[in-house]
Amino acid sequence: MLHEHRLFPADGAARAIAVKLYETIKDAPIISPHGHTDPQWFAENKPFANPTALFLQPDHYIFRMLYSQGISLESLGVPQAGVKGDASVGVDPREAWRIFAKNYFLFRGTPTRLWLDHSFSTLFGFTERLSEKNADEYYETIDKALKTPEFLPRALFEQFNIEVLATTDAATDPLKFHAQIKESGWKGRVVPTFRPDSVVDAEFIGFKENLQKLGEMTGEDVSNFKGYLNALRSRRAFFKSMGATATDHGHLTAMTADLPADEAGRLYERVFAGKMQAGDVELFQAQMLTELAGMSVEDGLTMQLHPGSVRNHNLNVYEKFGRDKGADIPSPTEYVRSLRPLLNKYGNEANFTFILFTLDETSYSRELAPLAGHYPCLRLGPSWWFHDSPEGMMRFREQATETAGFYNTVGFNDDTRALLSIPARHDVARRVDAAFLGRLVAEHRLDEDEAFELIQDLTVNLVKKAYRL
Amino acid sequence: MLHEHRLFPADGAARAIAVKLYETIKDAPIISPHGHTDPQWFAENKPFANPTALFLQPDHYIFRMLYSQGISLESLGVPQAGVKGDASVGVDPREAWRIFAKNYFLFRGTPTRLWLDHSFSTLFGFTERLSEKNADEYYETIDKALKTPEFLPRALFEQFNIEVLATTDAATDPLKFHAQIKESGWKGRVVPTFRPDSVVDAEFIGFKENLQKLGEMTGEDVSNFKGYLNALRSRRAFFKSMGATATDHGHLTAMTADLPADEAGRLYERVFAGKMQAGDVELFQAQMLTELAGMSVEDGLTMQLHPGSVRNHNLNVYEKFGRDKGADIPSPTEYVRSLRPLLNKYGNEANFTFILFTLDETSYSRELAPLAGHYPCLRLGPSWWFHDSPEGMMRFREQATETAGFYNTVGFNDDTRALLSIPARHDVARRVDAAFLGRLVAEHRLDEDEAFELIQDLTVNLVKKAYRL
Amino acid sequence: MLHEHRLFPADGAARAIAVKLYETIKDAPIISPHGHTDPQWFAENKPFANPTALFLQPDHYIFRMLYSQGISLESLGVPQAGVKGDASVGVDPREAWRIFAKNYFLFRGTPTRLWLDHSFSTLFGFTERLSEKNADEYYETIDKALKTPEFLPRALFEQFNIEVLATTDAATDPLKFHAQIKESGWKGRVVPTFRPDSVVDAEFIGFKENLQKLGEMTGEDVSNFKGYLNALRSRRAFFKSMGATATDHGHLTAMTADLPADEAGRLYERVFAGKMQAGDVELFQAQMLTELAGMSVEDGLTMQLHPGSVRNHNLNVYEKFGRDKGADIPSPTEYVRSLRPLLNKYGNEANFTFILFTLDETSYSRELAPLAGHYPCLRLGPSWWFHDSPEGMMRFREQATETAGFYNTVGFNDDTRALLSIPARHDVARRVDAAFLGRLVAEHRLDEDEAFELIQDLTVNLVKKAYRL
Repeated sequence: MLHEHRLFPADGAARAIAVKLYETIKDAPIISPHGHTDPQWFAENKPFANPTALFLQPDHYIFRMLYSQGISLESLGVPQAGVKGDASVGVDPREAWRIFAKNYFLFRGTPTRLWLDHSFSTLFGFTERLSEKNADEYYETIDKALKTPEFLPRALFEQFNIEVLATTDAATDPLKFHAQIKESGWKGRVVPTFRPDSVVDAEFIGFKENLQKLGEMTGEDVSNFKGYLNALRSRRAFFKSMGATATDHGHLTAMTADLPADEAGRLYERVFAGKMQAGDVELFQAQMLTELAGMSVEDGLTMQLHPGSVRNHNLNVYEKFGRDKGADIPSPTEYVRSLRPLLNKYGNEANFTFILFTLDETSYSRELAPLAGHYPCLRLGPSWWFHDSPEGMMRFREQATETAGFYNTVGFNDDTRALLSIPARHDVARRVDAAFLGRLVAEHRLDEDEAFELIQDLTVNLVKKAYRL
Repeated sequence: MLHEHRLFPADGAARAIAVKLYETIKDAPIISPHGHTDPQWFAENKPFANPTALFLQPDHYIFRMLYSQGISLESLGVPQAGVKGDASVGVDPREAWRIFAKNYFLFRGTPTRLWLDHSFSTLFGFTERLSEKNADEYYETIDKALKTPEFLPRALFEQFNIEVLATTDAATDPLKFHAQIKESGWKGRVVPTFRPDSVVDAEFIGFKENLQKLGEMTGEDVSNFKGYLNALRSRRAFFKSMGATATDHGHLTAMTADLPADEAGRLYERVFAGKMQAGDVELFQAQMLTELAGMSVEDGLTMQLHPGSVRNHNLNVYEKFGRDKGADIPSPTEYVRSLRPLLNKYGNEANFTFILFTLDETSYSRELAPLAGHYPCLRLGPSWWFHDSPEGMMRFREQATETAGFYNTVGFNDDTRALLSIPARHDVARRVDAAFLGRLVAEHRLDEDEAFELIQDLTVNLVKKAYRL
Repeated sequence: MLHEHRLFPADGAARAIAVKLYETIKDAPIISPHGHTDPQWFAENKPFANPTALFLQPDHYIFRMLYSQGISLESLGVPQAGVKGDASVGVDPREAWRIFAKNYFLFRGTPTRLWLDHSFSTLFGFTERLSEKNADEYYETIDKALKTPEFLPRALFEQFNIEVLATTDAATDPLKFHAQIKESGWKGRVVPTFRPDSVVDAEFIGFKENLQKLGEMTGEDVSNFKGYLNALRSRRAFFKSMGATATDHGHLTAMTADLPADEAGRLYERVFAGKMQAGDVELFQAQMLTELAGMSVEDGLTMQLHPGSVRNHNLNVYEKFGRDKGADIPSPTEYVRSLRPLLNKYGNEANFTFILFTLDETSYSRELAPLAGHYPCLRLGPSWWFHDSPEGMMRFREQATETAGFYNTVGFNDDTRALLSIPARHDVARRVDAAFLGRLVAEHRLDEDEAFELIQDLTVNLVKKAYRL
């Protein structure tokens, strides 16, 4: 089901070089500095419930495609808003799996298909493509495996040869599962990432309560800006003590601001009081990116910005199923003017690493590579979300490398909540990098010895350096 | 003049697979669900006037290129505004043809060249490229052929193996030529498409008269919104009775609106009275897209949206020659926020098919594929107009497939007013699809048996399903 | 170090054709119609100071990359604002060179690396890649060579087989070095280009003084619009008498305007008096593009527009080091509505050539190719600045050719201030064109005889025609 030389150029000199390059890093440990796996899995190390709960119900890549072809989310048992955990609602997981299997052809040509085939083949030994015909066989084989010790979360972590795995955690998360992992004596390195969106975005669900919680947890008076900033500092220090090396920021735009202190203070007070004027919500987020960049200069946490997703585009789906249900849609994103206030304040700082992601590929060659090829603090994150795909990765390398070089990039992020897809995703990235380097060498634009160095850098060294891992 | 394996990868495994895939669909019937051929041709079945009137004077792809290099439209006999029919003005068609032939080198690297060579070779048996030298030989051979029964419109339709051909017709068109075709007993299936731009865009030439005519044709009182909407419903029903399965909408932007009923009514009344306020023209078009989507939910007509063309950019050319003279220029087009009102109202309807086109390729991977990969109603039209070309089609597949999959696309549209180019255009699309699938198989991203299924789906099945043909 | 077949497709039919095509133009003379070399070099014909002053300190492509990785501009001896000439400040050029050599790996995958290797290999005979190890050997070899007659500016010009080289010169430049070259009797053709930004952009440093100087030089009363326009006409005539065939305009946007004469006059008076209202600066530049287009219609100078660069993005760097220090960043650029006023006035003029450049690649297929494929005056400049690279050039050909054709393009511009990179840059462009044409032929989209004609046109004929050289 998996061809040994998949994703390489089909023929010729570039293929031969890609094969050799890939050989040197295919077994390198996985460094996963950004993702959304659940620390509870590794803390409690309980078996996954069933194939449907594992593969289908939490994965918006999968159910968005099925939904786009008229299959209801209800029939797949996708968790509904207000329902605790990942539990499906009144759906036989075997029936949901059959729907999935019958419609597996919809994923032709998508990265989801590559990831799934990789898991099915390497973890469960399947040799025949999933289909309506073998749906039950698939289900039973996987279900049986999940009940074995080899498929407990920690065993999978080890089997996948993960050196370090970062989760993403709200600023007010007590990190109890991370603590539990530490205390358990298990050697797997699972580190948190500080994500303050829920206390920075005034339109975030529960924003007011989140602020209150932030104050309580830190003993700071968050009714004024100084106290609020100190509370964030305090949480960052706690995250750092728990192993965090990075922060993450998901904003609608890349807008930053650098207001005079008193103006920023008054802005915060309006936001805190819920008495925002027009533009205040966005301006406060903009100001906070600059404030948080300043904190990164102080404490050395690498800063990540993921802008450009219009969240919860489909109102009906949002009302019934809540966030993260495949209805987040990218939109045009401007970086050059937006980032200027922050960059003019901290862009030349030696101790600051600021990683930019985008869902708007037009910015790779126009804005992001030129910015990253100049500012000392800037690095380009890998192709993200919908662009975490063979064509997307190749476009990123083709459009960013000539201006930013390789050394202003940071290796691969799997960014996934699907544990079993982690090895598959890293493998795709390694193959695409090998293919890109193979072409450069075959076209005599790079020497072969350099390509062997680069494939190591892209797989291991750059990510460790950028995330200080 | 035409290489058997043109447009496939030049070498290797991908080429070999592309050849095999193409072999299975090269003779499949042509399904043409969207185009601009003239139903009068098939109703009256009269011979075309001469080579210049057939190939050159109606084809803005051709004369725009000649014009861009300093050749006057007058010297080519391009029809002028106010002049009836396609008749050229005081120009010897043979002289115009010589100018075209002498400048045929300008089309190197363009799809126009591929289409013309295909027609010249397969229909008229030419083996030598058109040039100044053989201009007269070309002219005479074609002119002679056009006077034979094999080159009458219906004979060409049959020779081209067209299963169904859709025309595009104003909402107030009485469809008399479609009726004449039906009554003639000829078996060729030529169906109309409902295009209401001339009664929805308040800046359309003759808008006021068009509304009046709409009222008269349907017996509805179009001075109020309800009567106007019912008049549209009535025309849609008539179009459907004449074989239409789709509507088409050409807007400057993809903006939609969902106003409260009373507000929409007052907006219509201002538009009807010609007393528009700032923004009313665009807002009314936006509201009407949502209203018309609602009608598609009712009557099952597939809806097509073609936004993003700034029409009649060149004022001098427009004043002398009128519309559709090669001076329509694409502009950046936003979909995510623009379509939200319509999608939040009808996006989850099972009985609704809404096909999106774009002239702004940046939206393929950023907006269109993510939207189509989620909303049940949405499908992506093929690469359109300036992007109906080998490179354009390949970019569409490369940029849209990973997120939307193949099954949220709808096969090919030739969108042409050039009858003789229809087989050529479909052939190019089939070859590019074979080339794309060939590469996926050669890179082991798709199994070969799947590619054979897909090439059928992309050529025949998806278009029939999307347009209910 | 330089493979004979670099930059061609790695294998197969396309490679074989590319090799043959390249063979026919690799030794063609260099036509360089747009660049930023210093006429003083050719006027005085003095040796270059040392390798660091020649390669490193004036080249923002190089030091921006080093700076992005935390290497200070000070340590490289990059000239600081207010310091005369290119002299470095208190830095041992050998030490700066060692830093450069040690970090040469940062340029992997960039065009800078290709240009440098080409110079190192063809001019200085190096066979081993620059590195920390051979830094001193490189330095000494180059330094020694620079002191020989073969490396004087005029000798290099001749050795490079440059047929004509255009510099870029402020409207108020007396062109004394160009005069000196003429008077010297040396046969090298070095022509000026008229660049009026410093007297058109009211935010340009020294704008007021520039206007005053303009008045003094021409004897026109520049306190009113008519006098100002006549002063520009006068300078254009002078530039033309000194060999200029073109003008160049660097604007933030492509905005043009066509104001009534009295309104334009009042706008100028506000600008002249420094009493601008909101929007006046941009509006005046917009109006001036149209005025200057009118002058091109009069005097036949080819007009070039380079919009879209946000200059001096990094405030700290700007304050210490001044302009052109690698901190200019592209931004989204709109052409269709922006150019309409100018095009509606002069777009159909037979005697007008208007060459458009862009830093926003999204406009190639969406706006620029459709515009250039229609308007007689328009031509597309080659891929510019950050896109003057193998991937960037290939994207330009792939995205522009199908709609604009080859004959609405103008060959290559090296646009460089790095004299030694000129042959390398032209060679890269020739190779990429050969590769693109090779693929078209190998895919049977173009006949081989046409490709041989085209490679001559792209290398020599189109540039001569567009720039009237």
